Amino acid sequence: MHNLFADIPTELAEELSQTLLAADGVRIERIVSLGHASPAGFWYDQNQSEWVVVLKGAAKLRFEDQIIAMTAGDHLNIPAHRKHRVEWTTPDEPTIWLSVHYGKRS
Amino acid sequence: MHNLFADIPTELAEELSQTLLAADGVRIERIVSLGHASPAGFWYDQNQSEWVVVLKGAAKLRFEDQIIAMTAGDHLNIPAHRKHRVEWTTPDEPTIWLSVHYGKRS
Repeated sequence: MHNLFADIPTELAEELSQTLLAADGVRIERIVSLGHASPAGFWYDQNQSEWVVVLKGAAKLRFEDQIIAMTAGDHLNIPAHRKHRVEWTTPDEPTIWLSVHYGKRS
Repeated sequence: MHNLFADIPTELAEELSQTLLAADGVRIERIVSLGHASPAGFWYDQNQSEWVVVLKGAAKLRFEDQIIAMTAGDHLNIPAHRKHRVEWTTPDEPTIWLSVHYGKRS
């Protein structure tokens, strides 16, 4: 038994990503950000789709055509190869994400 | 954009299950319980595996060999055909679950 809200580091040099489950083409991750953003100019371009939810904290995801602000409970689906980056996460508290990678690799 | 913690009914005759995503053999659901338990003698015997987390509230899951108490943040993986039932959810507040069904149907 593990807890999504436990074992949150108080200092984080880099975003922390932990795999909770990996099976049958599905990967579930907990991600903890603390004011982190994607490196300048970096875009995720993933060959699997990703469903993501912010459980605590606040973040902004940038897509090529829009920025989406997310707070606790907000979720969205990112189809494979939809380019995106983490534009901002709040520096005031850890942002805890849950991410489900799924689908065929394309 | 939708929010996992929004639109929680204040009265619930039955447990509420809502599909957030269904694609590529993966189904993500939000489940809201308010003191509900599985019917007497009922056991889930699912042909897909299920990863489940309690996001708010409290619950007890019964397996054939043990009972697991869960509070916010606790998650676990239920392999296909591992029989289980919801033994109890707190009547004091809604219990919000996130469930990811995945894997081959067996």
